[in-house]
Amino acid sequence: MTAGRTVTRMRAEIGEQPRALRDTIEVLLPRMSDVGLLARGTRQVLFIARGSSDNAAVYGRYLVESQAGRLATPAAPSIATVYRSKVDLNGVLAVAISQSGRTEEIVQTLQWAADCGARTIAITNGPASPLAQAAEVALITEAGAETAVPATKTYTAQLAALAVLALGLGADLDSADLRRVPDEVERLIEVTEDSAELAAIADELAQARGAVVSGRGLAFGTALELALKLKESCYLHAMGLSYADLLHGPIAVVDARTPAVLVAAEDGPALPGTVALARRIAASGARAYGIGGGAALAGACSRALPGPRLPEWVAPLGLIVPGQLVAEALARRLGRDPDLPRGLDKVTQTD
Amino acid sequence: MTAGRTVTRMRAEIGEQPRALRDTIEVLLPRMSDVGLLARGTRQVLFIARGSSDNAAVYGRYLVESQAGRLATPAAPSIATVYRSKVDLNGVLAVAISQSGRTEEIVQTLQWAADCGARTIAITNGPASPLAQAAEVALITEAGAETAVPATKTYTAQLAALAVLALGLGADLDSADLRRVPDEVERLIEVTEDSAELAAIADELAQARGAVVSGRGLAFGTALELALKLKESCYLHAMGLSYADLLHGPIAVVDARTPAVLVAAEDGPALPGTVALARRIAASGARAYGIGGGAALAGACSRALPGPRLPEWVAPLGLIVPGQLVAEALARRLGRDPDLPRGLDKVTQTD
Repeated sequence: MTAGRTVTRMRAEIGEQPRALRDTIEVLLPRMSDVGLLARGTRQVLFIARGSSDNAAVYGRYLVESQAGRLATPAAPSIATVYRSKVDLNGVLAVAISQSGRTEEIVQTLQWAADCGARTIAITNGPASPLAQAAEVALITEAGAETAVPATKTYTAQLAALAVLALGLGADLDSADLRRVPDEVERLIEVTEDSAELAAIADELAQARGAVVSGRGLAFGTALELALKLKESCYLHAMGLSYADLLHGPIAVVDARTPAVLVAAEDGPALPGTVALARRIAASGARAYGIGGGAALAGACSRALPGPRLPEWVAPLGLIVPGQLVAEALARRLGRDPDLPRGLDKVTQTD
Repeated sequence: MTAGRTVTRMRAEIGEQPRALRDTIEVLLPRMSDVGLLARGTRQVLFIARGSSDNAAVYGRYLVESQAGRLATPAAPSIATVYRSKVDLNGVLAVAISQSGRTEEIVQTLQWAADCGARTIAITNGPASPLAQAAEVALITEAGAETAVPATKTYTAQLAALAVLALGLGADLDSADLRRVPDEVERLIEVTEDSAELAAIADELAQARGAVVSGRGLAFGTALELALKLKESCYLHAMGLSYADLLHGPIAVVDARTPAVLVAAEDGPALPGTVALARRIAASGARAYGIGGGAALAGACSRALPGPRLPEWVAPLGLIVPGQLVAEALARRLGRDPDLPRGLDKVTQTD
């Protein structure tokens, strides 16, 4: 960071991620067996979350389905809290994710899931929170206090907990990949934070009327989370869409003043489609910015930031980091305080 | 319609909905028992769809969970088509929805579901389509040929088929409510099409930088579908969000140039929250447009269009109709041809 520049809390918390991830992984990897024990007799997963935690759940959903062979459902909390309906949840492992663990809607929906027959896990940064207390197994992330409204380190710590969940559910994956993440995130922050490309992307996005953020499969949650960061920190009309959903209609909004941001891991079966999408967008005359996806995606985009050198299944833990830096830089570029977006509180209460 | 004005195909197809719904309901209501028979031994539902059909699936999801006590999951097709992963789908009823029945991704994902152990239903407007042939039970909608790219009559016909699905799954609902829908849609088109309020909303939206479209529970799918209509017909940056998700971040983008459109049935437990949201948006200085929600929502909004006089569970079949008319009027107001949006084909092929 340049001396004399006021560092936003959001920027400081982005920088704390290597430490937060190291501590979280160290504490949670040994809990794999608790997850496995609780999950015995269950056949599928129900994720209960909102906001950034819900974007983390999207990663968890793709990870569980693609690597652990179990169907995973994003819960509709209003079925519990508004309609108060009874749903058959025998054989279901309910996983509630909340940074604070104090969002009542999430606590109530987890309790509803238990009443409907589900086993329950909480993933939260609040060790003594109502959510941690309501669950049979609590996976406590070690992000430390987060004070900027946009979640950064608590989000990536949730992803680490979800990687542990997948391992606990028997996914045939190497936990050594997960252990490599903190160093890789550290390197990624170093190469990105003062780069000319980051500044250029922020400059160009400052002129945009809106943006589309897209990724597929395991990277889809990253696209949703980056879109949310751009909305809440920069008030940019950013739409997070999967590669396929984008082609079913919304691609009509991509134009000279509406760039696309595309995210992808360096390998994996979702990469070719993402590169093809970048080419299609460039051919239509719109700008495409790449994050990750190696040389293939960078070569197809107008501008690009490097992503993590990690296997696809843990890549999302690093892939969001350049996006966080873009959102923070863009907020400052627009004269906005990313720490305190209008209309938002750190803990959102909905019914 | 005013004599001498060129009627878009989209507008003509909106007008065909009473007939399309009448025919679809007549043909599909007797198929309830086929659904019930196929669903024996299953405990939950997996919806497979994209685009407008996916918005229909969101209605199906809330209907099945709130009224039939079964967990319903929106499928992630890339698990089948990109990752080619095996997922345990024993006890699952897979319901694939596609207007044409010719989107390969959807056909492949339904076949994948069958391979994974699921029972299969197709909801499609294409009687001889690959999707209809791939499913154990095919519920064929009677919308007739749809030629405008934005789906209108095929979408509401899909909703009718989903209402039949819920009845077949044993939901304790009165099919007479469903039979009332076509006349109510006819009335709704008559009172809306040449109204000053429709013209005023289109005029105001023509000045907007973007829009947020929100609804909750059974009306959430309507919000998503209206947002899609505004994106594909008008290139308006419209974000479809549930009431609760809006409060978790994206509400920061609602401002003087970014109005909200709120949709709700005239009754039901989701209405009070929607009215409260309208008041909150109005208090922040932004415009809120209401569709449906009776006098309570109209009174809390800057402008409002009446919704259908139908119970909440079938209200979505009519609630989208004023929204379709807004999208079509706005497209013409902006000098755009809603029948042929840039970058889109009637049948979208994704891998």
